[in-house]
Amino acid sequence: MSQSQHLPPRQSSRRDFVRTSAAIAAVGGTAVASTVQAVEHAEHPSLIQAGNTILFQGDSITDAGRDRKTADKPNQQKPLGNGYAWLASAATLVERQDKDLRIFNRGISGNKVFQLADRWQQDCLDLKPDVLSILIGVNDIWHMLNGNYDGTVEVYEKDYHALVERTKQALPSVKLVICEPFVLRCGAVDDKWFPAFDGYRAAAKRVCDAAGAVFVPFQSMFDRAVQYAPPEHWARDGVHPSPTGAAMMANTWLRAVGV
Amino acid sequence: MSQSQHLPPRQSSRRDFVRTSAAIAAVGGTAVASTVQAVEHAEHPSLIQAGNTILFQGDSITDAGRDRKTADKPNQQKPLGNGYAWLASAATLVERQDKDLRIFNRGISGNKVFQLADRWQQDCLDLKPDVLSILIGVNDIWHMLNGNYDGTVEVYEKDYHALVERTKQALPSVKLVICEPFVLRCGAVDDKWFPAFDGYRAAAKRVCDAAGAVFVPFQSMFDRAVQYAPPEHWARDGVHPSPTGAAMMANTWLRAVGV
Repeated sequence: MSQSQHLPPRQSSRRDFVRTSAAIAAVGGTAVASTVQAVEHAEHPSLIQAGNTILFQGDSITDAGRDRKTADKPNQQKPLGNGYAWLASAATLVERQDKDLRIFNRGISGNKVFQLADRWQQDCLDLKPDVLSILIGVNDIWHMLNGNYDGTVEVYEKDYHALVERTKQALPSVKLVICEPFVLRCGAVDDKWFPAFDGYRAAAKRVCDAAGAVFVPFQSMFDRAVQYAPPEHWARDGVHPSPTGAAMMANTWLRAVGV
Repeated sequence: MSQSQHLPPRQSSRRDFVRTSAAIAAVGGTAVASTVQAVEHAEHPSLIQAGNTILFQGDSITDAGRDRKTADKPNQQKPLGNGYAWLASAATLVERQDKDLRIFNRGISGNKVFQLADRWQQDCLDLKPDVLSILIGVNDIWHMLNGNYDGTVEVYEKDYHALVERTKQALPSVKLVICEPFVLRCGAVDDKWFPAFDGYRAAAKRVCDAAGAVFVPFQSMFDRAVQYAPPEHWARDGVHPSPTGAAMMANTWLRAVGV
């Protein structure tokens, strides 16, 4: 009997399987308890496997001052920048030092979805990532709100969906991570962003679900985080995270991806 | 049959237990696999339970600019500072928002073990922490090396052990977390720190093991991290972590404590 025939998708992983076996061995097969509580606690399998190439893609939040000249060098701070992508990479590399991972960042400040598409061949498909993490959307609305772009939320969703489909056709085994666009209510982010911004978040989630991708709930995380420090602590201008904001994003990413 | 009679200490937790039950339910009781691999993958139970008071104690690395005036206010950034203690707290609070936790920081810059002892009643025991995390040691060697303190590594270990024993007597059910003192080889940290510093790390580990505490391997983490960014990236002066260094410490703490 193969386990994949009998486990629901989110709980079916070799990791859970071996964990189970250990626990069965430990309790001598007598374990019984609430499965409801258990399912709440169950973790996702890790997306990241030995030998994987991991690519972060997006806008300035992903870019975070990365060094362009050394962009082809994996696993180093300068080409990975100073943001969540670097912090998530550093934690992954330190935790999985034996896994021979190669991690790259190709985020570019100011990008909207159509600009990712313009450079997708060389900055994504040619790198043949095993795991691809995308965070895009805040400029799609921001540049529209300030009159520098005429794209709507429908354009965002259509372009994003097409980009993901193109990726899956070129790289059929790629594991996709779609990050939730987020803002903090401070700095450049005022009332005119809402409720429009929620539409962009919802669109990203639909793109994610249609692709069977892993979703990283950045907005949900920040909505909780503002109970403990004001919005400006997490992102002074409401868009670009502080080092602390980036650290929280990295935590959320690592948890979603299962590192 | 109680599970505590049959599970080894590190694997025995309600969390593992319920996870096990879910997996048993999922595979219909047919799970069999390598227990060796399973034990390698098994995670620690979380030290943090609903309603817990958590206290961070230590020196400047823990202090990290915390606001003294609001020190009695739990769960807020200003009294928790800007270091690993705040980042670990923020992640814990966001992840465990339903757990009614109360988190405090009482680190004070420049402290050595004997200075913790001097203020232990009001700054630790009176707070009655359920989980107590201590990071202390770098000043015990640093102030000795620069001629401002005559304590040896033996004094450090004896004082630290006595402080932990005093804590356990006053708070018999406290869960202890002992953090490994660490340095990066840059800034103020030159060759004259070695091999003496390794003796302080080893002493902290012995204190930890004697107390049955959870150990947080900060030095081991940074020894790996310097493969991906130079020592100055993690701590410019070799002692006080950068925001990125603090983020990595928070990750390591969270993993050790099982958040």
